[in-house]
Amino acid sequence: MRTGAKRKASDMKLLFITGNRHKFLEAESILKGCGVKIEHGSLSIPEERGEDCEAIAAAAARAAYRALKKPLFVEDSGLFIESLNGFPGAYSAWAFGKLGADGILKLMTGTVKRGAEFVTAIAYADEDGVRTFVGACKGTVAPMQRGSTGFAYDAIFVPEGQSKTFAEDPELKARVSHRRMALEKFAKWLEEKEKS
Amino acid sequence: MRTGAKRKASDMKLLFITGNRHKFLEAESILKGCGVKIEHGSLSIPEERGEDCEAIAAAAARAAYRALKKPLFVEDSGLFIESLNGFPGAYSAWAFGKLGADGILKLMTGTVKRGAEFVTAIAYADEDGVRTFVGACKGTVAPMQRGSTGFAYDAIFVPEGQSKTFAEDPELKARVSHRRMALEKFAKWLEEKEKS
Repeated sequence: MRTGAKRKASDMKLLFITGNRHKFLEAESILKGCGVKIEHGSLSIPEERGEDCEAIAAAAARAAYRALKKPLFVEDSGLFIESLNGFPGAYSAWAFGKLGADGILKLMTGTVKRGAEFVTAIAYADEDGVRTFVGACKGTVAPMQRGSTGFAYDAIFVPEGQSKTFAEDPELKARVSHRRMALEKFAKWLEEKEKS
Repeated sequence: MRTGAKRKASDMKLLFITGNRHKFLEAESILKGCGVKIEHGSLSIPEERGEDCEAIAAAAARAAYRALKKPLFVEDSGLFIESLNGFPGAYSAWAFGKLGADGILKLMTGTVKRGAEFVTAIAYADEDGVRTFVGACKGTVAPMQRGSTGFAYDAIFVPEGQSKTFAEDPELKARVSHRRMALEKFAKWLEEKEKS
């Protein structure tokens, strides 16, 4: 990333609409490193049902832009567990509220196949429409909760090639997470947009 | 119910919008006994997320009426399990597709408190707006699947004061189910409406 572009991008203060403070702080920290400043907004948007984080985020961004009429982004994330047919997927936050990470561990009792993928879809909306940026992080579901940082399923997710959970190693999470991947794509696109 | 009213109601053929053939057959059989004939319609309506079957059904009926411009009803049902904070609730059909009834049993391994409630909300829409009718059936989650009739969670649900699951005793289900309760309220209202 060129310094000139960075300087340009740093003038922007983008609205991130989310009800989740953890998500805001993660995004703020990652985007800061890309020269993008954000501010926190909240808005109750009726979310559509669906299995696809990208479609959900896009619909929410569209609805939020319609209401606020200023450039903004939203995100939708999910943990897709192979042996559970993608559960809890796009309903991860809801399922966490009901069952917690322990519910997932209970569902996977005796399950050897523990592959899972964390997905984040960011949707940015402005007067030109909606753009989406998807990031993913493959890994496995740990046999028990480990670690105390992060939120939601961080204590049971071990990224591929690693041994610690996201909750045990926040720096690892910041480096390889699904949210980081999506935010980097988003920041790169914002930078190109500034240039053009 | 008076015969005169029955004869009147029997002239109607109401559109039941559902993607679930089982639900249609149950409703057809129950409403037939109330003198109401129905026909099956299907329509892809984006469902809103929410915890409340009544609000979900009302929104879906509103959307369906907007699209089809004729009197119709929809339903939304859920199994709300106490010890799981209401899981799978309004997401019952989705969770069944991912986890099956066995997933619920796994989540409740070692759980003594097995209380649950089945809820059906019917929403009827016509040119006057939307009316909702809610039926509920309290019971418990059986320790294992039993019976082979019905659908979804019928094989693990035992209604209060009974020993058989809905899937073991379809006549019991037809008599006491959440869907029966909601449909009876609906039929009674239709009858009154015809009279007025």
